[in-house]
Amino acid sequence: MTPVLNRRLLFTEEPIGRYPTPGKTTTYDATQEIDIDNVALNGGFLVKTLVLSIDPYIKGRMHAANAHLPTYALGKPLDSYGIGVVIRSENPDIKVGDHLYGSCSFEEHFIRNRASDYLVLENKENLPWSLYVGAIGLPGQTAYSGWKEHANPKKGEVAFVTAGAGGVGSLIVQLAKRDGLKVIASAGTDEKVGFLKDLGADVAFNYKTSDTLENLKKEGPIDIYWDNVGGQSLEAALATANTKARFIECGMISGLTSEPYLVKNLMNIIIKQITISGFLVNTLFPKHKKAFYAELPALFASGELKYKEDATNGLEEATEALVAVLKGASNGKGVVLVGKE
Amino acid sequence: MTPVLNRRLLFTEEPIGRYPTPGKTTTYDATQEIDIDNVALNGGFLVKTLVLSIDPYIKGRMHAANAHLPTYALGKPLDSYGIGVVIRSENPDIKVGDHLYGSCSFEEHFIRNRASDYLVLENKENLPWSLYVGAIGLPGQTAYSGWKEHANPKKGEVAFVTAGAGGVGSLIVQLAKRDGLKVIASAGTDEKVGFLKDLGADVAFNYKTSDTLENLKKEGPIDIYWDNVGGQSLEAALATANTKARFIECGMISGLTSEPYLVKNLMNIIIKQITISGFLVNTLFPKHKKAFYAELPALFASGELKYKEDATNGLEEATEALVAVLKGASNGKGVVLVGKE
Repeated sequence: MTPVLNRRLLFTEEPIGRYPTPGKTTTYDATQEIDIDNVALNGGFLVKTLVLSIDPYIKGRMHAANAHLPTYALGKPLDSYGIGVVIRSENPDIKVGDHLYGSCSFEEHFIRNRASDYLVLENKENLPWSLYVGAIGLPGQTAYSGWKEHANPKKGEVAFVTAGAGGVGSLIVQLAKRDGLKVIASAGTDEKVGFLKDLGADVAFNYKTSDTLENLKKEGPIDIYWDNVGGQSLEAALATANTKARFIECGMISGLTSEPYLVKNLMNIIIKQITISGFLVNTLFPKHKKAFYAELPALFASGELKYKEDATNGLEEATEALVAVLKGASNGKGVVLVGKE
Repeated sequence: MTPVLNRRLLFTEEPIGRYPTPGKTTTYDATQEIDIDNVALNGGFLVKTLVLSIDPYIKGRMHAANAHLPTYALGKPLDSYGIGVVIRSENPDIKVGDHLYGSCSFEEHFIRNRASDYLVLENKENLPWSLYVGAIGLPGQTAYSGWKEHANPKKGEVAFVTAGAGGVGSLIVQLAKRDGLKVIASAGTDEKVGFLKDLGADVAFNYKTSDTLENLKKEGPIDIYWDNVGGQSLEAALATANTKARFIECGMISGLTSEPYLVKNLMNIIIKQITISGFLVNTLFPKHKKAFYAELPALFASGELKYKEDATNGLEEATEALVAVLKGASNGKGVVLVGKE
């Protein structure tokens, strides 16, 4: 078979400012070819990339200083969670046609060796594959395991969710409502605020045009704070927390793209007897995995849980998709649709 | 009987700077008299003050802005935890000779009505009464209940204790050692560092002459951080915390006497999956009260647990004693010995 193009998005320079720059920090390359039928697998398997997840942590992996995540190698494709379909395999644990969920390269095809790095998805509910990097992928897993582990919700309590319209936040809003809470949620555009209301949030506001602290003063005190943002939002939540509030620290995106805002009122942790729990999904999810897959896909398939995604076609504009996610400008979970089956 | 002097320390002005000023913010008054035999009790009980506890929170109560604690009334005596002996009583629940533990006025005699505000101490071990405001008073109760509730210590782990030579910290050092931990403790004078070593701390340093972060880098990572200080110490602990570390937020004294230092690395809460627990002794102690009284007095009586106190005689220099506590210059638990039996 004649070799086909294997388009890629390469990491080419550490970003200096808040955002990566297409063509500079990351470079789209449409020159490499791959001979799908004959490329040596050396016991591995050849995957055709279907969907890539675009998440804020990708920016973090462009900086060597962020030692908690492996830094991308210069000149090599980025990677993130994604879904691919196996088109050739020399590994007995991986079959042609398997849909793999796990680390996928930002290229149209890639070869891997370790079956244990991937989960073979069944998708009994026949959901769009992109959901497996969103609502029931890493963001969904993050929301579900963090909430089940740390929220301890009691009916009638008040929850505040930042970045409520994002992949994680939109599930938190819905899980909190299902647990009988009053939900206050914020987002950065009026369109997202509309989505928050569709999700059932009792109070939804645009933090860019409506002061977070004032909203919380009016609608709180808050018993649970789901923090995707850090900085000023965390400060406002501390100021308006109820006694024995639970703060679940999922992300501090405000510090990822700008100088971190320094929180002034940590003393509230003591005065209000607050518990703050930081967590990482990779460590926490295994404990909640069984319940997650038993519960969530069916709820999305039936429409009882809602989701929204902002899909970009092809790798050429994947950097722009990442910038949109970092700016909070994407309208739903950011995904890049790379190949078709 | 001829009336006797009832010397008092009055709250007379909100402090502006870091410390109260004797004669200005607080005024010693040796003009009031009391007729012990005839003063009207109106169903209450007359208490002779024996010991008063001098703690940082007293400064907080001089500021109306600290809404979590009742502010002292201008022109009235301060109060804090203390021990007094009952010399007259019209309350059936309180007997003459009872030793009461609870809120005591900064004066030689005072009258109260509610028996339920006080604990009648037995002192089977015949310990000095001052221990009941220190090692087995509020500081001891704070240390014990916070540690038992939130530390989850595992043998061989590393604990870091700030203000380790103080009333709370010195018990934490010893509890952590009894739980089989490696204990790193800091204090602000070389004399206190010597005391920390006497208490069994594996590593003790003077944070004024030896950098906290460098010490923790060398001796950590830390699994448990007992925070009495906040600010830069909290930042250093976050920087050197182990995965799944527990931070117990007991106090942030560094922010009480100066502009709070703003912590820059809260993101570590997420990366290291840290749990931060704020608590207040009044809420938490009841759960641990029985175990506390069953366990601790005997251990102090036998000398298995050690303590140190810095006693001031009489109310005239009680403000200086508070300043010393706030400056970290007192050498052991600050107490004022007011009267004798």
